Amino acid sequence: MKKVVIAYSGGLDTSYCAKYLSKEEGFEVHAVSVNTGGFSDQEIEKIGSNAKKIGAESYVNIDAVSSFYQKVVKYLIFGNVLKNNSYPLSVSAERIIQAIEIVNYAKKIGAKYIAHGSTGAGNDQVRFDMIFQIIAPEVKIITPIRDKELSRQEEIDYLKSNGVDMNWEKAKYSVNKGLWGTSVGGAETLTSHEALPEEAYPSQLIEKDPKKISLNFKKGELVGINGEMDSSEKVIEKLENIASKFAIGRDIHVGDTIIGIKGRVGFEAAAAIIIIKAHHLLEKHTLSKWQLQHKDYIANWYGTHLHEGQYLDPVMRDFEAFLQQSQDKVNGEVYVSLHAYRFTLDGIKSNSDLMNSSFGNYGEENKAWTAEDAKGFIKILSNSGKIYNHVNKEQ
Amino acid sequence: MKKVVIAYSGGLDTSYCAKYLSKEEGFEVHAVSVNTGGFSDQEIEKIGSNAKKIGAESYVNIDAVSSFYQKVVKYLIFGNVLKNNSYPLSVSAERIIQAIEIVNYAKKIGAKYIAHGSTGAGNDQVRFDMIFQIIAPEVKIITPIRDKELSRQEEIDYLKSNGVDMNWEKAKYSVNKGLWGTSVGGAETLTSHEALPEEAYPSQLIEKDPKKISLNFKKGELVGINGEMDSSEKVIEKLENIASKFAIGRDIHVGDTIIGIKGRVGFEAAAAIIIIKAHHLLEKHTLSKWQLQHKDYIANWYGTHLHEGQYLDPVMRDFEAFLQQSQDKVNGEVYVSLHAYRFTLDGIKSNSDLMNSSFGNYGEENKAWTAEDAKGFIKILSNSGKIYNHVNKEQ
Amino acid sequence: MKKVVIAYSGGLDTSYCAKYLSKEEGFEVHAVSVNTGGFSDQEIEKIGSNAKKIGAESYVNIDAVSSFYQKVVKYLIFGNVLKNNSYPLSVSAERIIQAIEIVNYAKKIGAKYIAHGSTGAGNDQVRFDMIFQIIAPEVKIITPIRDKELSRQEEIDYLKSNGVDMNWEKAKYSVNKGLWGTSVGGAETLTSHEALPEEAYPSQLIEKDPKKISLNFKKGELVGINGEMDSSEKVIEKLENIASKFAIGRDIHVGDTIIGIKGRVGFEAAAAIIIIKAHHLLEKHTLSKWQLQHKDYIANWYGTHLHEGQYLDPVMRDFEAFLQQSQDKVNGEVYVSLHAYRFTLDGIKSNSDLMNSSFGNYGEENKAWTAEDAKGFIKILSNSGKIYNHVNKEQ
Amino acid sequence: MKKVVIAYSGGLDTSYCAKYLSKEEGFEVHAVSVNTGGFSDQEIEKIGSNAKKIGAESYVNIDAVSSFYQKVVKYLIFGNVLKNNSYPLSVSAERIIQAIEIVNYAKKIGAKYIAHGSTGAGNDQVRFDMIFQIIAPEVKIITPIRDKELSRQEEIDYLKSNGVDMNWEKAKYSVNKGLWGTSVGGAETLTSHEALPEEAYPSQLIEKDPKKISLNFKKGELVGINGEMDSSEKVIEKLENIASKFAIGRDIHVGDTIIGIKGRVGFEAAAAIIIIKAHHLLEKHTLSKWQLQHKDYIANWYGTHLHEGQYLDPVMRDFEAFLQQSQDKVNGEVYVSLHAYRFTLDGIKSNSDLMNSSFGNYGEENKAWTAEDAKGFIKILSNSGKIYNHVNKEQ
Repeated sequence: MKKVVIAYSGGLDTSYCAKYLSKEEGFEVHAVSVNTGGFSDQEIEKIGSNAKKIGAESYVNIDAVSSFYQKVVKYLIFGNVLKNNSYPLSVSAERIIQAIEIVNYAKKIGAKYIAHGSTGAGNDQVRFDMIFQIIAPEVKIITPIRDKELSRQEEIDYLKSNGVDMNWEKAKYSVNKGLWGTSVGGAETLTSHEALPEEAYPSQLIEKDPKKISLNFKKGELVGINGEMDSSEKVIEKLENIASKFAIGRDIHVGDTIIGIKGRVGFEAAAAIIIIKAHHLLEKHTLSKWQLQHKDYIANWYGTHLHEGQYLDPVMRDFEAFLQQSQDKVNGEVYVSLHAYRFTLDGIKSNSDLMNSSFGNYGEENKAWTAEDAKGFIKILSNSGKIYNHVNKEQ
Repeated sequence: MKKVVIAYSGGLDTSYCAKYLSKEEGFEVHAVSVNTGGFSDQEIEKIGSNAKKIGAESYVNIDAVSSFYQKVVKYLIFGNVLKNNSYPLSVSAERIIQAIEIVNYAKKIGAKYIAHGSTGAGNDQVRFDMIFQIIAPEVKIITPIRDKELSRQEEIDYLKSNGVDMNWEKAKYSVNKGLWGTSVGGAETLTSHEALPEEAYPSQLIEKDPKKISLNFKKGELVGINGEMDSSEKVIEKLENIASKFAIGRDIHVGDTIIGIKGRVGFEAAAAIIIIKAHHLLEKHTLSKWQLQHKDYIANWYGTHLHEGQYLDPVMRDFEAFLQQSQDKVNGEVYVSLHAYRFTLDGIKSNSDLMNSSFGNYGEENKAWTAEDAKGFIKILSNSGKIYNHVNKEQ
Repeated sequence: MKKVVIAYSGGLDTSYCAKYLSKEEGFEVHAVSVNTGGFSDQEIEKIGSNAKKIGAESYVNIDAVSSFYQKVVKYLIFGNVLKNNSYPLSVSAERIIQAIEIVNYAKKIGAKYIAHGSTGAGNDQVRFDMIFQIIAPEVKIITPIRDKELSRQEEIDYLKSNGVDMNWEKAKYSVNKGLWGTSVGGAETLTSHEALPEEAYPSQLIEKDPKKISLNFKKGELVGINGEMDSSEKVIEKLENIASKFAIGRDIHVGDTIIGIKGRVGFEAAAAIIIIKAHHLLEKHTLSKWQLQHKDYIANWYGTHLHEGQYLDPVMRDFEAFLQQSQDKVNGEVYVSLHAYRFTLDGIKSNSDLMNSSFGNYGEENKAWTAEDAKGFIKILSNSGKIYNHVNKEQ
Repeated sequence: MKKVVIAYSGGLDTSYCAKYLSKEEGFEVHAVSVNTGGFSDQEIEKIGSNAKKIGAESYVNIDAVSSFYQKVVKYLIFGNVLKNNSYPLSVSAERIIQAIEIVNYAKKIGAKYIAHGSTGAGNDQVRFDMIFQIIAPEVKIITPIRDKELSRQEEIDYLKSNGVDMNWEKAKYSVNKGLWGTSVGGAETLTSHEALPEEAYPSQLIEKDPKKISLNFKKGELVGINGEMDSSEKVIEKLENIASKFAIGRDIHVGDTIIGIKGRVGFEAAAAIIIIKAHHLLEKHTLSKWQLQHKDYIANWYGTHLHEGQYLDPVMRDFEAFLQQSQDKVNGEVYVSLHAYRFTLDGIKSNSDLMNSSFGNYGEENKAWTAEDAKGFIKILSNSGKIYNHVNKEQ
């Protein structure tokens, strides 16, 4: 029997796909969900239960949190990557890892077909299809939602007529949660001029009293909070848990989809935003001017390529080598104050801090160079401008 | 008699210089202050009064607010320039314009000497000296503070012994105010780990109730607020006046000085930060993906060169031509909500909005392309990756 | 009757298309060829004569040489653009202009259909279709060659059976000639390891005695040769005529197609290569270090986007504004020696030459700075490295 | 006694320095020469003999050819680095390694002083001083030539009066030879318009019959010629020996010095130019489009920073990590034809060749995608342009 692995969320679209492929197309359906940080045990159980109801041959949830962190999130931190200077690429990054896990699972169980529930109007189809085709060009991709363009009601009716009668409530917002943030789309985000209302955000303001925390970094990775060390993915989760109570890290991302249209989506990403800003501050103290300058170019492109599903392009490995090497001295603590809806970066402490060295204090008299040195420096630095003006003035 | 033009702030250092140059070196001292947006009439009067007390031959305040906007600030907005993703380059930009105005004034009155009060340990000496040397290589630069490294007390004593007995109180923080922001240095900013206390910031939180405003942009320039149009520099001042009451736009800049050491300085720049973020949002709706991508490179370098005193390098004119051209369609309104210590961007409205076109709505069924088109697109887009993996797997 | 404008070369493929569309699909066929520099009057007459034989309703040749120069070639010179540091983008650039001329012609005569003869395996289909769709989304594109994948024999048979019996000889190489170079594809270029034989190149070595010429540039544009001034496109043609006799400017381009596969094509472009190298040399003398550095980024991307058919993206206008501004001082003469198969750049003369200024001669004693200045310069320049090593050594 | 290590070339300037420092300043002089590829045994012996004549306490020649290759040349090949698209940075790169070897030698023998013979008008002083100050800030740098600005005759007279009577003939050209090329400065290169005459180049045309060779690359490194494997530095020397007989690789570099003036210098670098061009061709076949695009940015900056003496900036290690990673698949052979004064690249063979895969042949009928796929691709690719034109046309 033809095996198909389906990227299964437990929702209406992928439930329809699973039923349809099994009933109409004669597939043996293997449902897979990939947890990149957003799933509770309860949710996983729910997805599995739904998979059974629609008659999947098997269901498995793959825990990819650590792999997500190691393969992508780590480099997004190293690069301080915020797409269009705002969005931590939460969903963009997750999709890549989910696709890789799914295609590897398909190979493992010998499935020659992979199905997913993306439409033909978004980014996810591109990310999924590209990864599948590149890693397993022999596998056939099946996308009933994209191909058939059914309405929700048609899907519900089909499932009902096949004995699957679940309560498919349509949420006002489409929410996607993961280790690196939660996206919130729909309603206002379909316009250009409306903000999301307070209640659209999953994390509401709970803590109102400011709180001071410190973040511990080692070679650019977040390894602890307030001195308590753990694996980076655990520390991220811990920070999210603390900071999301302050409703920090909300914004609306406006950007270009891979298919050439503009899109707008809300998100909350307390941990991601705080980590990136704190990490960047630590870099300002520990990296050279030239490292900071060139990292911007590389990180900006790393984000763009990742967003556009080009994670497997070998240039991404080259960028990662640069980013990894650049983190050699990014060690120390960053002090952060959490407030309602915002945070401040209060300072850092690092053995590699290039500011507070004993070499010479800024503005002190007994310093490492003289007034004459400074004047000579500026004189030589002015040479090219002097020559340019002199030569071109004569004409 | 030898004429010297001195960049005069009315403070202790430049008062010492003026007296010293007149008394000891026999100069005819012409004091000049250049207003790039931070001076009240009262302050100008005070500076002039001090200039007279120390015996300056003349004093003039040059109003350079409009020139500052036209020559620099405009392009910083076009480029959404925030140095190290934080600092609007307030002081860096002012110094350039001040230097240009001063050297032009010296030429006008036929002075062959220019004096300034910068030390040998900072950025300002580089910006001043470079501009002076490039525009007027024949002028001699005199910098008693840099050369003599006197203590405050020595300066006060010298002035007192020469009949100038003013009240030189040492402020805890060194504050520099201009159209594009106010810097606050000293005490905590000399460490790496301490934040500035609330009271260090000149603008204190006054308004606590959120307020909604709209900003009007035309070809990338801010031309109005809430629909009331005015010259851009006036609108910036108006916005600063509104937003600074919310204590918005505070941060601490950590960066590399031109002379190779790291520095840290606090700032508040409510108008600058809001304008740049609002302008960027409008660009996300009106510019193509490639414009957004490449503008980042150019704007980042525009900021770096400006910061390092390279304003007169001809590449800056080339960058400005790019930036100006890129703003052709950056028209419309941006909706902003002001809150205590923060603001949110709520949305935009623009005739050039590339998101809400009638061309095809995101996710709608009756769209401008089919599922087959999308699949073809992704298939071709996967070609290079497929080939790469295929070729390199065989080995 | 339905009007179709066909991009007509007079060859087998487009003749087949024209006949097929007229006979089978009932179109009124309007044949158009666009001369971007490679056509002789004889060739144009031949194309027109063929158009008549296959029953085209009308035929017109559009002279786009000047428009080609003004819209694209000029900027390729300003940017010293050589794709992959080798190929002057001859064909890539021509196709863009041809597409624009064709779609404008279609609009002019009220045609709602455009046909072209590109296959589904190359770059040209992308360039043509994109320009057509962007400028005239209402026009329908018809591509029988791409759709039907006929063999040459099938096409010949079809034409013969419809009374068109011409002599369609298949050349060993596919040659495309234009103002900016001639491409030569086929046979050896389909492999990775074989060079094109001498006889594959249209221009053979005729002149063997070295010849010295001078090129006159004004604001970056080539305006004369040996002091004889003319329009830039005429001077380019004149130079090509002289230099191609030396068999200069041959190479094989290896690059990435827009559809993700690698391609290889030979070319000869004597004028283009000499002009770009001469122009670049003049820039090395007249532009600042920073202009040279940043122009590389911009020119490299200008070439990439042009190659990939993105000529209409607004970022290209922004790049052009930068490039135009950067040429302000690129004036003067460049001395070139032509030899068999190669040339040397012997030097330049320019009023804006930043090297031979009276400001200070390199290595002379009485120069514009002292040993102390130089030492101060280097000391300050070493600060960041000293601090970095000092701080990080301690650990 | 105070020990000084002097960077000793055996020439007049450094001989003067050595004598002067020993006689007038009471130093114990330790002469060091660093061979980065250009020295014959005879030359080394000559330098040592001169060192003895002027009374140096010790002389040592450090063989740094392998270290030069491993620390710099390798990355210049990986990056295809040609400064201003012409100069392989031969001298710039050598100076860095020479400085490092010298300062390490000084540390080893406990010398607290280093002397060199550079003037105050060039790049070398910057490269030497920066490396010395960064690696050994405690060491004092002594530069009599820069400080005293003596004429050649004054130096000769001083030496003669101190019993050193050697034949110091002034060559018309100043020649510097190393593994990565030979620079030739003086006479014509001091003008902007004159070429170097044939006889100025050390390597004259000897071989006139074309010769075919193949170069073997492994992970981007040149490991063999015509299949004969050796260490990369040996293969470079072997290639230089073959190719310099064809007088290949000559050009005149025009560039910006670190001190802001323009300079011009001739060079011959047969091996360097051939290797870089061959390596680049192999990359065009084995790297992805994105690797080629981004490598340009990184390599360009790697060259600029190296040229300006910034080798020790940590960003250079980050760039090297990128470059090293990018070479993973750059394996294979490149076929080159050598002719008088020029060479051609004839093709490549590589297991990682992305062009000649079995995946799908360019232009073949039975290919990996259909006409419909291509049309879908282009349609989606046109979306952004279509929307832009549509939205902005309405206004």
